[in-house]
Amino acid sequence: MSSPTRRTGGRSARVEQAVLRATLEAFADGGWSAMRIDDIALRAGVHKTTIYRRWSSRQALLTAALDATPFRTPGATTPNTGSLRGDLQAMADETHEALREPRTRAIIRRLAESAGEPELSAATLAFWSSRIELAGAVVGAAVGRGELPHTADVELLATMFVGAIKLWAVDLGSTTRRAWLEQLVAATIRAGGGTP
Amino acid sequence: MSSPTRRTGGRSARVEQAVLRATLEAFADGGWSAMRIDDIALRAGVHKTTIYRRWSSRQALLTAALDATPFRTPGATTPNTGSLRGDLQAMADETHEALREPRTRAIIRRLAESAGEPELSAATLAFWSSRIELAGAVVGAAVGRGELPHTADVELLATMFVGAIKLWAVDLGSTTRRAWLEQLVAATIRAGGGTP
Repeated sequence: MSSPTRRTGGRSARVEQAVLRATLEAFADGGWSAMRIDDIALRAGVHKTTIYRRWSSRQALLTAALDATPFRTPGATTPNTGSLRGDLQAMADETHEALREPRTRAIIRRLAESAGEPELSAATLAFWSSRIELAGAVVGAAVGRGELPHTADVELLATMFVGAIKLWAVDLGSTTRRAWLEQLVAATIRAGGGTP
Repeated sequence: MSSPTRRTGGRSARVEQAVLRATLEAFADGGWSAMRIDDIALRAGVHKTTIYRRWSSRQALLTAALDATPFRTPGATTPNTGSLRGDLQAMADETHEALREPRTRAIIRRLAESAGEPELSAATLAFWSSRIELAGAVVGAAVGRGELPHTADVELLATMFVGAIKLWAVDLGSTTRRAWLEQLVAATIRAGGGTP
């Protein structure tokens, strides 16, 4: 998948992505308590002042790193395939791929382990809120195109879609088969009053 | 709400419920690491051999206690109002009520705090699996009555229903308004191909 960058300016974006990748690696390896800025700087090959200049705290850094992944390619834009079915399926497929990666599973385990840490809870909340927002953008666009009625509750549908994936694959650790995800996409469209 | 008991034999059932209640109290007060059988015995007013005789481990005890509540009255049977809408709404209302109680919120916080404990993870998994099973029983009955087509994916619908509530109310800590729950019930029925 191509990675359109969020910032213009190639070097700045490359540094940002290297730091976010290094943050997730450090977090996956040692968890929240072991995640240190100087270790991340070393992994990313940047000076630690470069990190401090952009992110105000470890929490802000992890929030940004989680926001870029594991369920989203860094810098990826909201899916825009032209249909709700295509957009939701793109999100579902990306999640499916991410959940097969050992690193993603390590990150999920680390998040669960450190759920008692208030700073980390905030990062986890931000992560799931942004997943709901992303799914909501996709559902909202479908309402705009007339694929779903205007009465559709965009946030509720997004919460059902993301919530089913989180409960099934993340909380219960069940395998997400492609057929399951296709069913989920179809059920979400029907839930919104659309025709899959 | 009346509490039909699972076991016949009043005393046995009363002892069981007292122990399960005491288990949740102890867990809410001190979390997993502080949850001791002798403390639970004291709170329940039983001898600790009574507890050891029925539950093989702390994990089995907490699993049983979580299964009875916080989202379900101890000994409650599966809702059977005669309609899918009524049954799902009964589950949603019970959850809504439970989530308003400070004790339920304490239990949720304790579960999150101790997510790294393997024994506790197993109890949490069992809890959410049993919620999906309960919602699945209700959806399956609706298929049996012809309220939903036979092609409806019972487990998927149950996962969407429970997953939305978990993500919204438990993980994100958002308030569940009654209107939100009514929308969720209607959306779940539509997702299964039914008419709310």
